Amino acid sequence: MIRKEVELLAPYAVKVYPCRIKLNQNESPFEPSEDAKKEFVRRLGEIGWCRYPALVPKSQIAKTAEFAGWIEDGVLMGNGSNEILSSIFLGFLERGRSVVISQPTYTLYKILAQTLGVTVHDVMMTQDFAFDVDRLILTANQSKASLIVLCSPNNPTGAQLGASEVQRILESTQSTLLLDEAYVHFAPANMVPLLSRYERLIIMQTFSKAIGAAGVRFGYALCWPDVARQIEKIMLPYHVNVFTLLAIDILMDDRAYIQKCVELLKSERTRMLAGLSAIPGVRPHPSEGNYMMFEVLKRKPADVFQSLADRGILIRDVSSYPMLQRALRVTIGAPDENREFLWALREVV
Amino acid sequence: MIRKEVELLAPYAVKVYPCRIKLNQNESPFEPSEDAKKEFVRRLGEIGWCRYPALVPKSQIAKTAEFAGWIEDGVLMGNGSNEILSSIFLGFLERGRSVVISQPTYTLYKILAQTLGVTVHDVMMTQDFAFDVDRLILTANQSKASLIVLCSPNNPTGAQLGASEVQRILESTQSTLLLDEAYVHFAPANMVPLLSRYERLIIMQTFSKAIGAAGVRFGYALCWPDVARQIEKIMLPYHVNVFTLLAIDILMDDRAYIQKCVELLKSERTRMLAGLSAIPGVRPHPSEGNYMMFEVLKRKPADVFQSLADRGILIRDVSSYPMLQRALRVTIGAPDENREFLWALREVV
Repeated sequence: MIRKEVELLAPYAVKVYPCRIKLNQNESPFEPSEDAKKEFVRRLGEIGWCRYPALVPKSQIAKTAEFAGWIEDGVLMGNGSNEILSSIFLGFLERGRSVVISQPTYTLYKILAQTLGVTVHDVMMTQDFAFDVDRLILTANQSKASLIVLCSPNNPTGAQLGASEVQRILESTQSTLLLDEAYVHFAPANMVPLLSRYERLIIMQTFSKAIGAAGVRFGYALCWPDVARQIEKIMLPYHVNVFTLLAIDILMDDRAYIQKCVELLKSERTRMLAGLSAIPGVRPHPSEGNYMMFEVLKRKPADVFQSLADRGILIRDVSSYPMLQRALRVTIGAPDENREFLWALREVV
Repeated sequence: MIRKEVELLAPYAVKVYPCRIKLNQNESPFEPSEDAKKEFVRRLGEIGWCRYPALVPKSQIAKTAEFAGWIEDGVLMGNGSNEILSSIFLGFLERGRSVVISQPTYTLYKILAQTLGVTVHDVMMTQDFAFDVDRLILTANQSKASLIVLCSPNNPTGAQLGASEVQRILESTQSTLLLDEAYVHFAPANMVPLLSRYERLIIMQTFSKAIGAAGVRFGYALCWPDVARQIEKIMLPYHVNVFTLLAIDILMDDRAYIQKCVELLKSERTRMLAGLSAIPGVRPHPSEGNYMMFEVLKRKPADVFQSLADRGILIRDVSSYPMLQRALRVTIGAPDENREFLWALREVV
């Protein structure tokens, strides 16, 4: 009785190994500040466990709007940006409609689209892993795509779309552009300033990466109020729980600490690029995110992955992604973790 | 660009009024025990905010299985049973398929079905608000329904399906039966013992009612492992956050306290039935849940609702539901709240 698309679907999977050093999920290695955690405990008394959260948690929405630099009426909140992604897909897509995705990228876009029986048009990146903007536009127009979904900076390849490219896509197609900015806090700029000019632009951001709160599961989308009101109808009432609402309230007050962590990770990223470049047989690709993709020229990625795992270092084998036959991805961790990873990789390749 | 079904959808809405006494959402009036809350604070240190939760939180799944009396492989967890409901709908339903719903009932079933463009067959309850089992079976067979969704005990009318009725539905149709047992902890028995015999039975339960944790947003489904593996593919990875996972772990150790609260609410329910019966012009309907529906014979429900709201007492006006033109629903609250509600209602009608 289960729908055929669902039966055919491969489950979202992540290889889990016991590890000392976890560089496989693009998490921040830094917990929120001690002050933030103390404040969480102090304010737990405010929380009623037995009552539903507010249907519209206005103060958190207002704070998120201010945090993200957009208007309150255009904020959607969710249990991680995954939940918002799923609702936006359900809002814009159905069998007979199509979506354009740049590949290689975050695998969930395609899984969600396939679940809905939607036609997926994959557009490969260029050989140097830039977005192929011309082909994205062409494909969106030819397929009359309802949605174009782009991860920028792109996971796992690392490049970010420039503002002029985003504008070109919006102005040359009729599609809604869903820009997943999960990693944007590590990049030079976000695209939020473009929102006021483009009704067909939706931007998603998350607390799971730079904000250091993947366990809290919080993401948000920014878009025009008309669009937000429609997507809201699909989102489940009371979906974000009272703990998450309290946690994000506190985290948004902890910006100075978070910014310090981000700066440290960005300087570690520079070091990582240099370190990888110095290893013979390894070709790293510059990244605007808190991760770096690299190709191994002499050994199989799966073997490198396993040899590192045997040493207690977990990274991500992305060699099954389109175009990435020789690639692995490492999350930028704490300085010690990165150093140990580089030593181990040098031994392994 | 938004799908037509979504545009046409009325948003899920709850009238929010400032109130002293909140009897409108079938919440438990009782917070978890002080010990449980202290334990939560004590164990917060175990939680990593910056790391994703486990992809499969095995210990909580095992504990939920034991709590609910079913096998681990057949447990699905979600952010409230709403999230599971949504995933099950997406698993079984699409345009061209149909679902049978007993009416009047919880409004979200129909909204979710409409979102998916699915044909909804409403089957009215009998005049005394029993499930019309014969007609449910007939309608499911005539429409070749993929899914029958029944809330039992039913919100807002109060009756529960007996085991023999559940079996009759399963044996007389080819449909999957989704039984929403949100309120079952207040009823004489649940239908979990039937699960081992029926592959087409899925049972949902929640921590939002008897367990006193609506703010925590946790629900679960119990079904056969094959079905669970399929629905799991639709659920988003890492959807349940680290706070919720810790909270449910602790709440499931607090059963004695929870049972005491449930018993108190059940005895209050008896008192509520007597109290409502004693008010001229009010016709209450016995309930197996932590709420009671009553009809007002002399004043409009909307007026009664408003007069109570003016006194700071919030209940639910369900008079727009099918068959319920004269009905309101009151949640069974704490003894003082129920007493004050009854006094006020006597004045108002």
